[in-house]
Amino acid sequence: MKVLLCGELDAAEWATWRGALSAAAPQAEWLDLRQARQDPAAVQAAVVANPAPGSLQGLPGLRLIQSLWAGVDRLLSDATLPPQVPLARMVDPAMSEAMAETASWAVLTLHRDFQVYAAQQRRGEWRVWPQRRAGEVRVLVLGQGEMGRCVGSRLAALGYPVQGWRRDGQALAPRLAQADIVINLLPLTPQTRGLLAAPFFAALPRGAAVINLGRGAHVVDADLQAALDSGHLRHAVLDVFHTEPLAAGHPWWTHPLVTVLPHAAAQTDPRTAAAVAAANLLALQEGRPLAHLVARSRGY
Amino acid sequence: MKVLLCGELDAAEWATWRGALSAAAPQAEWLDLRQARQDPAAVQAAVVANPAPGSLQGLPGLRLIQSLWAGVDRLLSDATLPPQVPLARMVDPAMSEAMAETASWAVLTLHRDFQVYAAQQRRGEWRVWPQRRAGEVRVLVLGQGEMGRCVGSRLAALGYPVQGWRRDGQALAPRLAQADIVINLLPLTPQTRGLLAAPFFAALPRGAAVINLGRGAHVVDADLQAALDSGHLRHAVLDVFHTEPLAAGHPWWTHPLVTVLPHAAAQTDPRTAAAVAAANLLALQEGRPLAHLVARSRGY
Repeated sequence: MKVLLCGELDAAEWATWRGALSAAAPQAEWLDLRQARQDPAAVQAAVVANPAPGSLQGLPGLRLIQSLWAGVDRLLSDATLPPQVPLARMVDPAMSEAMAETASWAVLTLHRDFQVYAAQQRRGEWRVWPQRRAGEVRVLVLGQGEMGRCVGSRLAALGYPVQGWRRDGQALAPRLAQADIVINLLPLTPQTRGLLAAPFFAALPRGAAVINLGRGAHVVDADLQAALDSGHLRHAVLDVFHTEPLAAGHPWWTHPLVTVLPHAAAQTDPRTAAAVAAANLLALQEGRPLAHLVARSRGY
Repeated sequence: MKVLLCGELDAAEWATWRGALSAAAPQAEWLDLRQARQDPAAVQAAVVANPAPGSLQGLPGLRLIQSLWAGVDRLLSDATLPPQVPLARMVDPAMSEAMAETASWAVLTLHRDFQVYAAQQRRGEWRVWPQRRAGEVRVLVLGQGEMGRCVGSRLAALGYPVQGWRRDGQALAPRLAQADIVINLLPLTPQTRGLLAAPFFAALPRGAAVINLGRGAHVVDADLQAALDSGHLRHAVLDVFHTEPLAAGHPWWTHPLVTVLPHAAAQTDPRTAAAVAAANLLALQEGRPLAHLVARSRGY
């Protein structure tokens, strides 16, 4: 089985993924883009990490596009993506664990004021703030896929009262009104783009905090900045941005109420993700149902 | 039953504790130091928060000293403390929870490099570091009392391989050699004072990190600074210091590899601790065994 491996990987990453995938799917013959172009009809599957637009055109034998990344919004924005080929997201258990770690760290930071103590250290200020219990800090998790559920159960185990919300469920505003910390883990779709805007922030209680682990385009930056600057929101932890890397001089870098992470909340782990991709390749080969397929109309 | 309440509390704190204790032990008549001096022989118990040295002298009817704080090292350093009166530490479940939160936050920070990302944000630098799994980060917890055990079980639940160590157990150096992160939760005694010194740091593997949630006097500051500056240790999270508040101009305030917390890792919570103190007062009144007694020869 000939499989194209391509995308935004540097040489070292490509070698790591190639090694992990070869070990997990020894029956596959791995091709790079140049090799695939030599016999395009022979390519049966593509394992991709946000490939350059057009990379998957002209492969008439293609029967599976397996993403190495959990988010497929950039992949779907490629108008040349073959419309009939099944597309699978990556659902990597190690990545969900990593996301739960980052969410736990961010919630503990906000709950126990560690971002305030960090600012105090920079000023040389010694001041202790009142200590709340985990049970007094209400967390709302937006998105109830693998990652949202993993994050929610981890936070519940830490003692936080956790609510979950999914776009096709209940109204959002009443949930926001009862959240001290809201964590965005939604997929980026036309329906969720710009969801974190002025009405969203206004629905949160004064002093709430926002953690964005989804996509930068979920947030209307100017509205978030206004909500922080007015004192309505206490803090924002942002891992994702409209443009990445975040541009030099962007206000988030220096905003005292914003924690900037360099899209580091959760990386796909080749050691576990390669096995997930290999399982789908084997399913394709044996004619069994494919896992984690994207509903393109839905966007994830 | 007449009970003296005294210590390093400001007026608001005194009112909070007085209210919580009165509710938890309605049979007690609460006296301040001035009131106690009017009829010293009538005072049967003292509930104290690091009282000024000499405060507990001249109370011939005293049969219990109940500390509101978990650490009794400052209390025991008062040479005038009546030697025959039973002394009880505070073992507050809410404080153990708070300590587990702080330890979890600090371990997650070091494991996932969030202190590095914070430094990068201050420089406007976008750079992602390799992501390790929790199972790859070995944690050693020094001290196996209520707090040490609570911290250890919480970290194990987060996926970290956790070892515990107590002073009267196995040799320390072999344990240190296998620790990526070491958390100090030992009581401060003549035996543990200055334990975190050059030989301790040298026994840790290169790149290890230290979290001190015990007492400042556990650490030889110059040795820790040397271990950080030489590159042997990666980072230190310090909540406690030889002198508190940490002096202006102390090197820890500005050291790039040190996180300073203002002795905020875990506060005793009046809502739970008052019930613990009240249970001991009731045991005293009813002639039942007292809980959480300090072995003065041992120092905790």
